[in-house]
Amino acid sequence: MSKAKKGVANPEASAITTEPFPASRKVYIPSERYADVRVSMREISLSPNDRAPVGNGAEPREPGPVAVYDTSGPYTDPKIKTEIRQGLKPLRQEWIKARGDVEEVMAPQRRSGENGAERFPESSRRPVLRARPGGNVTQMHYANQGMITPEMEYIAIRENLGREKALTNGGNGGSRVHAGQSFGASIPEFVTPEFVRDEVARGRAIIPANINHPESEPMIIGRNFLVKINANIGNSAVSSSIEEEVEKMIWATRWGADTVMDLSTGDNIHETREWILRNSPVPVGTVPIYQALEKVGGKAEELTWEIYRDTLIEQAEQGVDYFTIHAGVLLRFIPLTAKRITGIVSRGGSILAKWCLAHHQENFLYTCFEEICEIMKAYDVAFSLGDGLRPGCIADANDEAQMGELATLGELTKVAWKHDVQVMIEGPGHVPMQLIWENMTKQLELCHEAPFYTLGPLTTDIAPGYDHITSAIGAAMIGWYGTAMLCYVTPKEHLGLPDKKDVKDGVIAYKIAAHAADLAKGHPGAQLRDDALSRARFEFRWEDQFNLSLDPDTARAFHDETLPADAAKLAHFCSMCGPHFCSMKITQDVRDYAAKKGLDEKAALEVGMKEKADEFRKTGSKIYHEVTAPESGVGGVRVGAAAKE
Amino acid sequence: MSKAKKGVANPEASAITTEPFPASRKVYIPSERYADVRVSMREISLSPNDRAPVGNGAEPREPGPVAVYDTSGPYTDPKIKTEIRQGLKPLRQEWIKARGDVEEVMAPQRRSGENGAERFPESSRRPVLRARPGGNVTQMHYANQGMITPEMEYIAIRENLGREKALTNGGNGGSRVHAGQSFGASIPEFVTPEFVRDEVARGRAIIPANINHPESEPMIIGRNFLVKINANIGNSAVSSSIEEEVEKMIWATRWGADTVMDLSTGDNIHETREWILRNSPVPVGTVPIYQALEKVGGKAEELTWEIYRDTLIEQAEQGVDYFTIHAGVLLRFIPLTAKRITGIVSRGGSILAKWCLAHHQENFLYTCFEEICEIMKAYDVAFSLGDGLRPGCIADANDEAQMGELATLGELTKVAWKHDVQVMIEGPGHVPMQLIWENMTKQLELCHEAPFYTLGPLTTDIAPGYDHITSAIGAAMIGWYGTAMLCYVTPKEHLGLPDKKDVKDGVIAYKIAAHAADLAKGHPGAQLRDDALSRARFEFRWEDQFNLSLDPDTARAFHDETLPADAAKLAHFCSMCGPHFCSMKITQDVRDYAAKKGLDEKAALEVGMKEKADEFRKTGSKIYHEVTAPESGVGGVRVGAAAKE
Repeated sequence: MSKAKKGVANPEASAITTEPFPASRKVYIPSERYADVRVSMREISLSPNDRAPVGNGAEPREPGPVAVYDTSGPYTDPKIKTEIRQGLKPLRQEWIKARGDVEEVMAPQRRSGENGAERFPESSRRPVLRARPGGNVTQMHYANQGMITPEMEYIAIRENLGREKALTNGGNGGSRVHAGQSFGASIPEFVTPEFVRDEVARGRAIIPANINHPESEPMIIGRNFLVKINANIGNSAVSSSIEEEVEKMIWATRWGADTVMDLSTGDNIHETREWILRNSPVPVGTVPIYQALEKVGGKAEELTWEIYRDTLIEQAEQGVDYFTIHAGVLLRFIPLTAKRITGIVSRGGSILAKWCLAHHQENFLYTCFEEICEIMKAYDVAFSLGDGLRPGCIADANDEAQMGELATLGELTKVAWKHDVQVMIEGPGHVPMQLIWENMTKQLELCHEAPFYTLGPLTTDIAPGYDHITSAIGAAMIGWYGTAMLCYVTPKEHLGLPDKKDVKDGVIAYKIAAHAADLAKGHPGAQLRDDALSRARFEFRWEDQFNLSLDPDTARAFHDETLPADAAKLAHFCSMCGPHFCSMKITQDVRDYAAKKGLDEKAALEVGMKEKADEFRKTGSKIYHEVTAPESGVGGVRVGAAAKE
Repeated sequence: MSKAKKGVANPEASAITTEPFPASRKVYIPSERYADVRVSMREISLSPNDRAPVGNGAEPREPGPVAVYDTSGPYTDPKIKTEIRQGLKPLRQEWIKARGDVEEVMAPQRRSGENGAERFPESSRRPVLRARPGGNVTQMHYANQGMITPEMEYIAIRENLGREKALTNGGNGGSRVHAGQSFGASIPEFVTPEFVRDEVARGRAIIPANINHPESEPMIIGRNFLVKINANIGNSAVSSSIEEEVEKMIWATRWGADTVMDLSTGDNIHETREWILRNSPVPVGTVPIYQALEKVGGKAEELTWEIYRDTLIEQAEQGVDYFTIHAGVLLRFIPLTAKRITGIVSRGGSILAKWCLAHHQENFLYTCFEEICEIMKAYDVAFSLGDGLRPGCIADANDEAQMGELATLGELTKVAWKHDVQVMIEGPGHVPMQLIWENMTKQLELCHEAPFYTLGPLTTDIAPGYDHITSAIGAAMIGWYGTAMLCYVTPKEHLGLPDKKDVKDGVIAYKIAAHAADLAKGHPGAQLRDDALSRARFEFRWEDQFNLSLDPDTARAFHDETLPADAAKLAHFCSMCGPHFCSMKITQDVRDYAAKKGLDEKAALEVGMKEKADEFRKTGSKIYHEVTAPESGVGGVRVGAAAKE
């Protein structure tokens, strides 16, 4: 053991974040259908309710724990020891093998360890899998056969956020759950595995699940499910340790990234990806043209189909779950970008435009598309059809080039579906608010309801340094309209490489956008967390407020800046205003007063007016605090069940 | 002089931010109608355009300076020396006096300087003004008389963002300006003083302009104008110097606050407000019930109309431009809040609910509303009719209590207009996206198109610490739908008192929301800044990108983290990716190549294919860089005028 460790860089265990979330525990919800399907979720426990909830007709209760969707994988479970040189447990390995349609292949030894990069240990590697000759191992293929895979079962449980079928409105204690407006999407009250299967078969949802990435926890991208977010990561210009590279992925998923895209460039691109895949609990996407370009020394015009194809296979064998492929950048669209202010802003799009112009030939990703499908279905890699011609500024939004490419992506979607290969469609970019709707509706129409996966969109160009905000606005809106996954934008967009703080800021901004969209669509269960947090807020349960929030650390730190004492977190006023000014305190006083008076009939309101006012005058200004014993009577206002809506 | 200074605290001049913005100068656009109307604006100069804009049909040009709306007042003009103990120059003083309808009054000496607070110097004070008996000095009154006041003239010039009437699309160089979708608002191509007058007369816009606050630069709040933002400031719990209090206001307006609300509490409330008003270039709003409550020792039930009335007059005499008045919190609505998760969250609303319940009488702000109007019109204080029953969480949005209050505010609007008193309507709060539209349309209908002034709304409750983002999403949307002013929310909302960083973060998030809304509405001229910045981005003019951004300091700092050398700011690649990967560089190469080839006809595209490909092979992979001389011919792709939309 000590020998094996000698050859590697000093393991910086501290670089990997494994701290559990406060007041949280990992729970594993078992499936009834599959014995080995146990769905990971995070349960946030609440403090005992220190105020009986008067006024809403409910009995005093212990607030139950709140289960939340959890992308952080085993890293936040103190019961599981993770070790990046071993990789994660291959959760899906047996499910894949049990289907009996894969074979082990002798993959060529890919270049590795150049420039001294540490190689993922041979002893931790598994054999590469591929579909048997002529086979098809995509989740879409299985769905079209009518199968319910363990992946589909897992997803169904996961999407229900721990709710039981019987629990209408999730025990919401009488508070309103808004109906939402889902623009033609049809989100079921309760997600069943059959529903998952049917959506995948229809092409309206995808399950990115390469058979060589069994470590990933199944998740789904589709507009009838929870809105997902992606975080881009990639190696730094300055050489960093393997721990740092892996930590970026773990850090992004800790805060809520549903998938990560590895956009690394440079010499160690293959090996960095290996480390990320072996340790990632979420699907990993890439843009294979980046690596292909490395192979030809950065010269776009020297790219060939053969080099690209080899790169696809190399990455599929490693386990990449989806590929961004800019097959819609057609030669005839390129001149349409000339009148733009910012031309072509997609890297992949630029590379292919250069290739097309240099050769005066059609994009080889387009001409070889069926061959690509053959590769995709042998590993279950999903297409993320790239929008190489997306707008790079407000002025360029929704132009002819963009829409021409979108129609081409729709055409290619049909081709991929013919092969039972899963597809999502990438979208912009920079779009003013009034044009976002058109993006969504055109995409649904032209791309036959394949899931949309957008970058923002950014709703103005004037705020570099704050583009997580300019784009969270557009992301929330397009998520509401039907986009299935939102690619995050960090504050460093347009300016530099994001550091850990930027990654977290980007992820949180996008969790906000995705959650706001889930609420607006009326996703059942989405509002449970809002309600639990708001109830904690009203009842001055500060710790519960922090623990229920997307970022407990920041919420707690901000509060501590003003009132650092522990006692303040139980105090019945907050730091915004003293006891006199706290509106929530005053409201609670009003409720207590009315409830304790035991007042009852709305009809009695007017009769009781004078009586109550007299009483007030007699007891003086301290009336809210002095009345402690319940009292019966007909006068006054019952602030409670009498107020029917 | 030195004697006078002895009695005061040591002036901390450094506490006041007076640094001009980079590459910016203050310009003062003269009026043709009024000799003494000179409209302050900020002009951002651009570096000489180092790349001729090929491909869009325009001639090479020097990029002109970009004029931007400027709320920072004289503090950012190095030619003007400001001194907070003197206050700002009373810009509007002569305009007010020239109307001949005011008189000086002997205002009672208000309490001041208790607890050792420094008093605003007597020598810097002006006499208090009031309308002559029976008079009405509101801008609405003048508008209804058909007058065009200097304030209206100022606003017309200001709202045009320095554009000349003749300059269609602001010299946009052929790029597209999107039409926008303004939902029934009618934003003119060019704002005239007559238009300003008519909107104010109609009640669709207000000009907050107390005759005792002549220091403020005229601005307008209405949905047919640029969307405005408000920042809340207020004294800290810990005693701070006068400089710090004034600096909060200057800091907020520096980053773009169109108005500030002084929400101070405590002993020095009167004197703090005096310092802020005398130094504020933007209108100042308050919630007078806060000070009234101080006067009765914080006991809501001891409030009386007389104490409140006296407080209104005291603040009107100081120059407060608008009052939040919660006159719609009616006794019968209070029980409707009982089923809510978070009850009443407006402080003012809570205070009045407590008063109403304690007395079992109708809200005195409602019963005395006409008397309040008499005060408002004697100084031109605008109503900001408060939404005391706004929802405090997602679950409580758009409920009966909120909508009942809104209808009451609409009823009161009619009363105020009868007196020619200006009115805006406050709105929520916490609202999921799908319910935002209903808020706006109901407000327009129930409140007769009086301007809407909303707090956010926050689109989810689960992100304390990030509520500037949860709310910027809702603010952008409701601004697009027609809200005239957006009250900012800082990251510290619900958690603590905002510091300077929080104030700036809140203001910038709201400038983004307001600007995104202006773009979406199709406000003429709004897109000029986006286009200028995007053009700079495409042409790698880094300094111009920074200088054109909402926050040049942060944009520059973020860029410097990765590439600190000055040279990098002129480099034709950015820090996101090296030269090979930069899509903008590649696009420019493509354009240069096509333009320099002088290729012309779309029809010649196919003919030239083979020729160009052959040429490429001959010249090798460096073709984009080696071709330097223009060349005529028919082959190849002209990436330019041939690509007609």
